[in-house]
Amino acid sequence: MAAATKERILDTAIELFRRHGYTGTGMKQVVQAAAAPFGSLYHHFPGGKEQLGEEVIRKAGAMYGELFASVAGQFDDVVEGIDMFFKGAADALVASDYEDACPIATVALEVASTNEPLRLATADVFQSWLDGWTAYLRVRGGIDEERARTLAVEGLAGMEGAFVLSRALKSPEPMLLAGANAADRVRAALG
Amino acid sequence: MAAATKERILDTAIELFRRHGYTGTGMKQVVQAAAAPFGSLYHHFPGGKEQLGEEVIRKAGAMYGELFASVAGQFDDVVEGIDMFFKGAADALVASDYEDACPIATVALEVASTNEPLRLATADVFQSWLDGWTAYLRVRGGIDEERARTLAVEGLAGMEGAFVLSRALKSPEPMLLAGANAADRVRAALG
Repeated sequence: MAAATKERILDTAIELFRRHGYTGTGMKQVVQAAAAPFGSLYHHFPGGKEQLGEEVIRKAGAMYGELFASVAGQFDDVVEGIDMFFKGAADALVASDYEDACPIATVALEVASTNEPLRLATADVFQSWLDGWTAYLRVRGGIDEERARTLAVEGLAGMEGAFVLSRALKSPEPMLLAGANAADRVRAALG
Repeated sequence: MAAATKERILDTAIELFRRHGYTGTGMKQVVQAAAAPFGSLYHHFPGGKEQLGEEVIRKAGAMYGELFASVAGQFDDVVEGIDMFFKGAADALVASDYEDACPIATVALEVASTNEPLRLATADVFQSWLDGWTAYLRVRGGIDEERARTLAVEGLAGMEGAFVLSRALKSPEPMLLAGANAADRVRAALG
């Protein structure tokens, strides 16, 4: 029960932080939306909002990393795998009226220059995603480690920026063009 | 004098919003940092924080659009122009300890699903930047309109995402790799 309450608070906070950002989400709002007693928040997160923020970043980051593995992992053709991950992101944006985007980008920009423990948590998550993309391109695509990592960095940069542009413009076009760019670059690396 | 006060408030708010985001910046903080009387805020921005936010987005957006024109515009070789704009962004990140980044990205993600007037202001700014990149690639590079616009969208997506990754990782690498990607794509379009 206690563990279930903690996970419910975390999942609720993931959605609130994604939608309203870290600064824009109040602790009261989290417990109300999670239908949890206020005391349970400080029981499970004695470090307060900062601890909650860090656990939200790490849990949401792990979930999104698993999403990449399960979507791209269906394809031995790494060009198709990368392409389908971007197409899935574009579909999710459209289906959610441009709400369902990177779960940590808003928080990452908010904390980059203002909260070092949370910045480090976002850095860990981005590194883990880059490791996942790199391993996929290396193992399934036979692309050497260094080139695979470069493709991962430029591909993830394209996707993160496309989330910013697609949400602001309410258009899937930036995500689809960033995906075509990333797929082309992977194709070229296959030689 | 009144106009100068308004511009000083705007310039101060641009820096505060860039650093703390829209939600994380209070009106009191803005007038204090701008050394302006509190009443002047509502005199110049009768629409309150939302009006201030909109004017901040539009002014910062116009300034950054001019920066692209003045940096890339020095080069008739559009590959070099695009490359130098990314290198300048990487240099600015390093020199400012990763604070000096896109002036509207944090606000754009905060408001995308929560404040429609401000989302529209960020959309206008991104469109104006895409128009600027497209015109540069078309006029200086002789690239046809449609291809130039595609390059602008994927290039700007790469840059916006690289701001997220470079700030979180405190490394210029994502910005430099996104720049190499964008320059390669422009080079390929020149045929």
